[in-house]
Amino acid sequence: MSQPTTLVDAYPSRMETTQIIERKDPVVYGPRPSRSEDFLNEDQLNFYEKNGYLIFESFFFREEVARFEEELERLRNSTAIEDNPEYFLEPASREVRSIFNVHRTNEIFRKLSREKLLLKIVTQLLNSPVYIHQSRINYKPGFNGKEFYWHSDFETWHMEDGMPSMRAISCSITLTDNNEFNGPLLLIPGSHRQYFSCIGETPEEHFKHSLKKQEYGVPSPEVLQNITDQNGMVSFTGKAGSVIFFDCNLMHGSNGNISPWPRSNVFFVYNSMENTLVEPFCALKPRPEYIASREFSALKPS
Amino acid sequence: MSQPTTLVDAYPSRMETTQIIERKDPVVYGPRPSRSEDFLNEDQLNFYEKNGYLIFESFFFREEVARFEEELERLRNSTAIEDNPEYFLEPASREVRSIFNVHRTNEIFRKLSREKLLLKIVTQLLNSPVYIHQSRINYKPGFNGKEFYWHSDFETWHMEDGMPSMRAISCSITLTDNNEFNGPLLLIPGSHRQYFSCIGETPEEHFKHSLKKQEYGVPSPEVLQNITDQNGMVSFTGKAGSVIFFDCNLMHGSNGNISPWPRSNVFFVYNSMENTLVEPFCALKPRPEYIASREFSALKPS
Repeated sequence: MSQPTTLVDAYPSRMETTQIIERKDPVVYGPRPSRSEDFLNEDQLNFYEKNGYLIFESFFFREEVARFEEELERLRNSTAIEDNPEYFLEPASREVRSIFNVHRTNEIFRKLSREKLLLKIVTQLLNSPVYIHQSRINYKPGFNGKEFYWHSDFETWHMEDGMPSMRAISCSITLTDNNEFNGPLLLIPGSHRQYFSCIGETPEEHFKHSLKKQEYGVPSPEVLQNITDQNGMVSFTGKAGSVIFFDCNLMHGSNGNISPWPRSNVFFVYNSMENTLVEPFCALKPRPEYIASREFSALKPS
Repeated sequence: MSQPTTLVDAYPSRMETTQIIERKDPVVYGPRPSRSEDFLNEDQLNFYEKNGYLIFESFFFREEVARFEEELERLRNSTAIEDNPEYFLEPASREVRSIFNVHRTNEIFRKLSREKLLLKIVTQLLNSPVYIHQSRINYKPGFNGKEFYWHSDFETWHMEDGMPSMRAISCSITLTDNNEFNGPLLLIPGSHRQYFSCIGETPEEHFKHSLKKQEYGVPSPEVLQNITDQNGMVSFTGKAGSVIFFDCNLMHGSNGNISPWPRSNVFFVYNSMENTLVEPFCALKPRPEYIASREFSALKPS
């Protein structure tokens, strides 16, 4: 955890004005063309490079997914939720919104995070061993699940966690069917090729609020209007057990959920071992270990 | 405006328990089979009877819609919004959420409400002359448009306005493109065949709050879970200028809107001249004229 004081921040943010900065890092780090032992073919790599995401429908078997879902329910109904900092509740209803750190605290999700094929895909894209920067279950209950406003994860991980470069991938696995009614993940394809710095200084212990309702580190309406006019929008829908991989700098969010169907996903962030955290670029103290891991040990398949 | 005190309320609500009451009124009042001069054919009538709605994509020409949209923008940006009771604002952002009574206060929407083909369809379905019970523009702005929770309009119109029977139709016209991203109208097909009484007494001047955020007159989660398990859910999406007609007792709602695209509709409620209002069934004073009209004069095509 060191950071030379002379370092020029390639991706500044949380200032008085919005800046649009061209991405300085590759999107696909792996060899091109892909090798015969690689999982992703050239078309998939091209798609990922251009759009910033890749979707695999019904990636897991129904029986596997049933086990994940069962575990999710068990966790959600466990006791002492109120006192556990890893649980984030909906502001109004006090229902569980997110559970962090499940790749360390829960055996089923620990194994899932090291699933061989998931690792094969992310190590190909990042061309290096990886560790888990963050894991969480987003529960989004039925009837009153709240929205997640637009954001680039990298903006937060860079500013608040000290992630140096764009060399991380989010992997989200649907634990319930995600459909047009229950507030699926929305993505702005291609938005990962620019970095949109956000307005406003980061408050102390921002994560306690931002993980319930984001107010800082969000792009301006003008930026969002422009990039959606240019790139459009896609939703990630699919049966339980579908998977999306998306670049750490892809703009995404989701609407609320009045449907009776919870929209639950488990979310692993794989960061390259060559991109481990330094001091946060916003000059505040780092977020806790259960949100931004500083235990940099390369994952081996489970 | 009379109501015999011995009248037994066929559709009680706002009590201590939930009741499910079978619909006592027809859905299609018009002659079957339809006559040659009618607009809707037998398949359409069957669909409406079964599902409680009918959708017509691109019902209006692009040029007509552009004029409506322009007028909407003009109204939304007009002065003295804060003092006008016909304008309802989003609780947090103070942006315009709805504008009521546009069929009387605005020439363009007055004409639109009497559009010949709209009247032909509703008078066929209701088999009588009609008047407008309520009109409104729902603006649902981009970025932070809020949800409308599940409700049957009839439950409110019966309890708070004194509408005796289920013999009214809502007609909603999209003024912007309504898509999967910007919080389109969600419907539970077939839900109009039962009446779900709601829990809780109606507070005085309920409309001042309910039209911003509904808390009374909403069905229980158990009811919603059951009827969606039975009937599923559909969304009303389409280019600006599309039209939906739906039964006054059809359960509907919509999610919020974080997309940059406003989701704006104009909404006319046509009530049968044989179903004019009596005293509200919740025993409070009637809602104001701009929300629930008591000017019962049959519409003539514009």
